[in-house]
Amino acid sequence: MAHGGGGGADLMACKQEEEVENKAAWLLGIKTLKIQPYHLPPLGPLDVKVRIKALGICGSDVHHFKTMRCASFVVKKPMVIGHECAGIIEEVGSEVKSLAVEMKFFGSPPTNGSLANKVVHPANLCFKLPDNVSLEEGAMCEPLSVGVHACRRAQIGPETNVLIMGAGPIGLITLLASRAFGAPRVVIADVDDRRLSIAKNLGADEIIHVSTNIQDVDEEVIKIQNAMGSGIDVSFDCVGYNKTMTTALNATQSGGKVCLIGLALTEMTVPLTPSAAREVDVIGIFRYRNTWPLCIEFLKTGKIDVKPLITHRFRVLTRGGGTGL
Amino acid sequence: MAHGGGGGADLMACKQEEEVENKAAWLLGIKTLKIQPYHLPPLGPLDVKVRIKALGICGSDVHHFKTMRCASFVVKKPMVIGHECAGIIEEVGSEVKSLAVEMKFFGSPPTNGSLANKVVHPANLCFKLPDNVSLEEGAMCEPLSVGVHACRRAQIGPETNVLIMGAGPIGLITLLASRAFGAPRVVIADVDDRRLSIAKNLGADEIIHVSTNIQDVDEEVIKIQNAMGSGIDVSFDCVGYNKTMTTALNATQSGGKVCLIGLALTEMTVPLTPSAAREVDVIGIFRYRNTWPLCIEFLKTGKIDVKPLITHRFRVLTRGGGTGL
Amino acid sequence: MAHGGGGGADLMACKQEEEVENKAAWLLGIKTLKIQPYHLPPLGPLDVKVRIKALGICGSDVHHFKTMRCASFVVKKPMVIGHECAGIIEEVGSEVKSLAVEMKFFGSPPTNGSLANKVVHPANLCFKLPDNVSLEEGAMCEPLSVGVHACRRAQIGPETNVLIMGAGPIGLITLLASRAFGAPRVVIADVDDRRLSIAKNLGADEIIHVSTNIQDVDEEVIKIQNAMGSGIDVSFDCVGYNKTMTTALNATQSGGKVCLIGLALTEMTVPLTPSAAREVDVIGIFRYRNTWPLCIEFLKTGKIDVKPLITHRFRVLTRGGGTGL
Amino acid sequence: MAHGGGGGADLMACKQEEEVENKAAWLLGIKTLKIQPYHLPPLGPLDVKVRIKALGICGSDVHHFKTMRCASFVVKKPMVIGHECAGIIEEVGSEVKSLAVEMKFFGSPPTNGSLANKVVHPANLCFKLPDNVSLEEGAMCEPLSVGVHACRRAQIGPETNVLIMGAGPIGLITLLASRAFGAPRVVIADVDDRRLSIAKNLGADEIIHVSTNIQDVDEEVIKIQNAMGSGIDVSFDCVGYNKTMTTALNATQSGGKVCLIGLALTEMTVPLTPSAAREVDVIGIFRYRNTWPLCIEFLKTGKIDVKPLITHRFRVLTRGGGTGL
Repeated sequence: MAHGGGGGADLMACKQEEEVENKAAWLLGIKTLKIQPYHLPPLGPLDVKVRIKALGICGSDVHHFKTMRCASFVVKKPMVIGHECAGIIEEVGSEVKSLAVEMKFFGSPPTNGSLANKVVHPANLCFKLPDNVSLEEGAMCEPLSVGVHACRRAQIGPETNVLIMGAGPIGLITLLASRAFGAPRVVIADVDDRRLSIAKNLGADEIIHVSTNIQDVDEEVIKIQNAMGSGIDVSFDCVGYNKTMTTALNATQSGGKVCLIGLALTEMTVPLTPSAAREVDVIGIFRYRNTWPLCIEFLKTGKIDVKPLITHRFRVLTRGGGTGL
Repeated sequence: MAHGGGGGADLMACKQEEEVENKAAWLLGIKTLKIQPYHLPPLGPLDVKVRIKALGICGSDVHHFKTMRCASFVVKKPMVIGHECAGIIEEVGSEVKSLAVEMKFFGSPPTNGSLANKVVHPANLCFKLPDNVSLEEGAMCEPLSVGVHACRRAQIGPETNVLIMGAGPIGLITLLASRAFGAPRVVIADVDDRRLSIAKNLGADEIIHVSTNIQDVDEEVIKIQNAMGSGIDVSFDCVGYNKTMTTALNATQSGGKVCLIGLALTEMTVPLTPSAAREVDVIGIFRYRNTWPLCIEFLKTGKIDVKPLITHRFRVLTRGGGTGL
Repeated sequence: MAHGGGGGADLMACKQEEEVENKAAWLLGIKTLKIQPYHLPPLGPLDVKVRIKALGICGSDVHHFKTMRCASFVVKKPMVIGHECAGIIEEVGSEVKSLAVEMKFFGSPPTNGSLANKVVHPANLCFKLPDNVSLEEGAMCEPLSVGVHACRRAQIGPETNVLIMGAGPIGLITLLASRAFGAPRVVIADVDDRRLSIAKNLGADEIIHVSTNIQDVDEEVIKIQNAMGSGIDVSFDCVGYNKTMTTALNATQSGGKVCLIGLALTEMTVPLTPSAAREVDVIGIFRYRNTWPLCIEFLKTGKIDVKPLITHRFRVLTRGGGTGL
Repeated sequence: MAHGGGGGADLMACKQEEEVENKAAWLLGIKTLKIQPYHLPPLGPLDVKVRIKALGICGSDVHHFKTMRCASFVVKKPMVIGHECAGIIEEVGSEVKSLAVEMKFFGSPPTNGSLANKVVHPANLCFKLPDNVSLEEGAMCEPLSVGVHACRRAQIGPETNVLIMGAGPIGLITLLASRAFGAPRVVIADVDDRRLSIAKNLGADEIIHVSTNIQDVDEEVIKIQNAMGSGIDVSFDCVGYNKTMTTALNATQSGGKVCLIGLALTEMTVPLTPSAAREVDVIGIFRYRNTWPLCIEFLKTGKIDVKPLITHRFRVLTRGGGTGL
């Protein structure tokens, strides 16, 4: 899941059948997704060929599917979607030794994605999964990376009380990451009680039901601050609406930080001045970088359990050519 | 000058006559300022009594004068105004030894200010001026502190290219402070050519005339970036309008910072998401703290020359009771 | 336990009987400790009177007892020893409201300590224990503070692999603190197998038996690095001998940090240049500051369990005048 | 000049004659340096061919010349020496566009140096000199980089009072760099009055003559601290002897930093514990990285003038085969 998916798509993992001809899910137009042959480029000396075994569906995939765009990225020609993936290496380039630098993005225009039987991938951007981490969990390293990167940038540690606006997939993952970074107390707010109850099960200290009405901000800020019990050091806005950002800016204590992860809006109307005058800084997030090793460490040691986030499984039919979703 | 003065008041320094009864400029109501007796509290063991010799008029003083408020601070009863001051110590409390911790704010409700013949002041918040720094220059430590604090928070150094939105008093002072912190290149933008020409004389590398029309932002951003010639690392918005902040957010390079100093608006409508997605952070400023020693150092060594900013001088008539401004 | 106790004293907790006249353990000369009346100063408006209920014996107390000095601090007149304490507030000064700033040191010349029935103490340096934290555990906040402060200064987090030289009380406490700050992997080295086995039980990933022979450093560094399996980011030297510091400097990877906590020697002979040329920085530690709230949080949530470190209990006989130890 | 040259060689710049066959200064054995043909490798697609026009002699070159080694680097086969160089690009590889990442080291085993007529060099490690910076000044970017990198790591700015131990080439360059980073006050100490007088001319606020006798440390520390007049925030040890490091550790105020640049000794005997207990950190330096653009900026704007450091000029005789030095 790329952050930026303001949508509410639940997480899913897909498994693909083995077959002779490589196929992939091609986005051809608005709501037009077809399983079609995917001719891979030749394997370069520093590439590996990976058989994809698990893949999550991100909110941004849904955006692409519905609108042929996501944020400022526009799909201009047929593109393979998908980027939350894990698989098995089948072939190794002649000069591949080990891994090095991270961050290249699958399935965002103009790069094809990984909802395919096989992909060719630079070897140094592949990470070996430990024995006790499944391929499905491995595919979750991608959305988890968003939370991990946000916690790094916001410097979460055992003295950072955290507020999370939004209990969608990215909000939940930020909750798990905040805990893994040692946050002593995490309060999470959402409009949806079902999501809040999942957040509670995943370890939120307090859940706060909020409205979509901007008039309620003052009252809800007090409710959130009371639930925290002490000063809020960092707020993550995992939604990106005017109301969620206003709440985050006003609720955070002087000298704290608001980290804007959700990208629902471009232009925002928010009370930026009063929080700036309290030296509450706004921290931005661009996806992530160098996060896979830490994500894998968290999964391996059990500091983070992503299994409850895998709610549905789909087996892609690759014989025919219909939509696999 | 307290930052927050979005207004354009030029800086002025006042001198007061010696006299028997202590008097001060009392703000009694909207546009009603009277010179009236100011009975000082008894000198505490850690206080000093200071004869005020120079005092600058801040934009926030003008706000108080015109509206009985400034930002969220409301004048509810008669208050002595003024806070950019220097003077001579006349009497010292019994336990005064030296100075320690800073930051207490004159002339903002509910605290009386210093536009008076004499004030009683905690000794540890008084700073000795070197021989080569005049009382007028000393009074400028207060507005200069805003620029110094902003440069500290934004971590200006010899590798930080700086954009300044607004060439009013705070913009100019931020220009001087950026230079003193080593900024290799400073570009400054304003709507007023006279102000820009002052900025040029004070050492700006490039000055950019901008409009008040929000439609011009894209074009002006390109003009500003071209004038800089390389990436903009830190932008200071010394105005705080939607247009100035939009320009700052869009012009700053990925991974840079926008420091919001001007407080013209409370609610702002700005493209916060695209800059956040480029990890451009928004840094807030609350006045300053522990800045006087560094300001005095800059004045003493000549790294900063504030004399060109002192444009008018008024001698307050303290015999009568009329408005001194 | 103040850090700096290079000695190996196990931790002990003492309980005192209630009685009419206040008594304390007075250090009168080398190995001469007597329980004698301790006339408390009058309770100031910002003080509280505390009945001491638990107190740990630090290595530095043992140093004072044996030599009348510890590091550069010299006991010049009779002094009450002890500083790892918890108790019950019996009387409150007239202006006491709540707590604020920390750090003042008990039982180090010239300040009397807390191995007494009662002490008078500034209220804002007292911290309330939660219901699920015992007085004995509360007394452990003092030594725990050393580890917490070291982890803060060395910026321990979920990406910091930690080596600890020395499995004495401070080494063990640094192990617990490193874990609470999220260190993914902790290797600990000592000359004493019994101590290493305690370290293993407290959660060390690997324990390494080392010698006292400086000739063995190269070989032991390799053993330690192999046990870590990846680069050592931070080494804590909780001993402070030439050999432990040499091992720490050589074992830490380029760009890492060595944090010197143990104060066994004043002058050290160590290969400082080769590690400096690898940009391994040496971080110093002075006791701690502002650590009690975080220690209490760790104890309350169970992130740290100090109970295994409380190995012996002594009940001080306060009727007579003999040595209580 | 690579840092690490504890020796006292003055800086020199050499000019070479144009000629048909490329030649270089080959170090063949102890004190055996011969001008011999240097057959360049073929120009790769990302390389440029540079005609060397100016080259400084570093203390490390002298070490290599006298002992066939420097620090832990050993010359095992004939090697071209020299690494402080500037020149003119004569030929450009087919894919060269612009520059990117820095740091690769000339003339340290096993890499040949640049005391040659021509060298082949990766294009992205070449930096264009502005019109107002001469080739001789350009060659000084290399030693200047040591000072710049040290100032970055020690975070020198307008609030950092600096002590420099050693007024040799690296000490002087660190003085210039400290000033360019804004250090308000720099005190420099050396055993040699001639060097101190150069330091004074280059802008040191105070110069302190010290002895080589370790017994004098306490007295000299007081002299240095008095000369500074306020707390010493950062000390640079540009020598690396026990006495210079002891002086730096003891003179620096609590919470400050000592930056060890000089590499005269491997094993050091210094009072590391008392300074660690005052939280004086020891910062190491490995050469530099990404410094050329900033050095060129300093030279271009005149914030640093290196011309006084260029004291001798040699014209290398390239027709014959004798030693060029």
